[in-house]
Amino acid sequence: MYIGILGSGQVAQTIGAKLLEKRHSVMLSSRNIDAVKDKGQWGKLQSAREWKDEQEKKGYDAYVSDFQEAAAHGELIFNCTAGAGSLEAIKSAGEENFSGKILIDLANPLDFSKGMPPTLSVSNTTSLGEQIQAALPGTKVVKTLNTVSAMIMVKPGLVRGKHDLFMAGNDETSKEWVKKNVLMGWFGWKSIIDLGDISSARGTEMYLPLWLRLMGALNTSNFNIKVVKGST
Amino acid sequence: MYIGILGSGQVAQTIGAKLLEKRHSVMLSSRNIDAVKDKGQWGKLQSAREWKDEQEKKGYDAYVSDFQEAAAHGELIFNCTAGAGSLEAIKSAGEENFSGKILIDLANPLDFSKGMPPTLSVSNTTSLGEQIQAALPGTKVVKTLNTVSAMIMVKPGLVRGKHDLFMAGNDETSKEWVKKNVLMGWFGWKSIIDLGDISSARGTEMYLPLWLRLMGALNTSNFNIKVVKGST
Repeated sequence: MYIGILGSGQVAQTIGAKLLEKRHSVMLSSRNIDAVKDKGQWGKLQSAREWKDEQEKKGYDAYVSDFQEAAAHGELIFNCTAGAGSLEAIKSAGEENFSGKILIDLANPLDFSKGMPPTLSVSNTTSLGEQIQAALPGTKVVKTLNTVSAMIMVKPGLVRGKHDLFMAGNDETSKEWVKKNVLMGWFGWKSIIDLGDISSARGTEMYLPLWLRLMGALNTSNFNIKVVKGST
Repeated sequence: MYIGILGSGQVAQTIGAKLLEKRHSVMLSSRNIDAVKDKGQWGKLQSAREWKDEQEKKGYDAYVSDFQEAAAHGELIFNCTAGAGSLEAIKSAGEENFSGKILIDLANPLDFSKGMPPTLSVSNTTSLGEQIQAALPGTKVVKTLNTVSAMIMVKPGLVRGKHDLFMAGNDETSKEWVKKNVLMGWFGWKSIIDLGDISSARGTEMYLPLWLRLMGALNTSNFNIKVVKGST
């Protein structure tokens, strides 16, 4: 399948690599495909071009370009940009390049400008997922994967035992397709809870502040939550 | 122990009944101790006075009065008011009646004025827990129990298997005391995750929108979450 990925950071590279393993044609995108991101204590993240070259050497069908080309490339599109830049990236990609397609939005509207831990730039009465759906009325936005680290997104087995992923979106058929093919089929998720329409993205995005505190308390980002039901 | 409870609604009555079972002296409080609350499909909640009379018949040391009397009654105080009214209730109770004591805050700042599901009246850059701590600088505020339904607060065994409760507060000794005596000792919790200082209340209060969506998806409030760690 032809898949376009908005973004070229750690999440985009991780999702992209997994999709290439599954033998899809994947295009990452960036404002500057030669930019090398400094990840502080985690070293430097390779540039989008370096990532593409490395994947090509493995024989994969990898590309990098701008947001517009990536959206046009994809029959399916992932939004892996930082939440603060998602709406601008989508706008520059051109609404017509998303039309009729499924957009999997896994960004979180984190605002690091006020120090650590980050706050949310939108929350409570709306969500980034809703804003993206409003900006792309002809596109089926499915919000999912935003409650776990990039590594766990594509390798849920890193977390022991049962644990849950959440999903929100207005189009039932698209959610079912994403659940069956992308989440369970390609990424290996076993349990996905459909929270309802795209406004449910408020719930999963507003979970991030708890996720960040848990990361601090557990001293790792390698965790997830499991919903446990009562006996009555 | 003498325990004061701010509030007389479902959470206050549930917490109060459990504390009476443990043979504490418990005072509930309300602006109107004869008000009967209509819980819609769940029928009517008995008034604070009716609750007190019922508990007295069982031989328990139960009282009802205003917020000021309840705070003065307690060596330990629970805030079980609706979040929207918590700061006003605390103000009318008088700061001096909380001084040097532990206040367990289990309220959520839910705003039902904009329809269902409720939004949060404060979030993101602050929390109700922090606002209460700021209003009562001489009091040790411990935020906990606000991520589960009233029934589960005092009977965590209703949820099958392992699941977690969260705790936030500035005073380590008070958190340890609450964890050991109240949460594990009186209520039966087995796993409590200390998220850090009172600003961590942002995390647990902002989890409420996800909790509300999960309640809708699962069609029950009888659930909780378990944090599952990765293998690396």
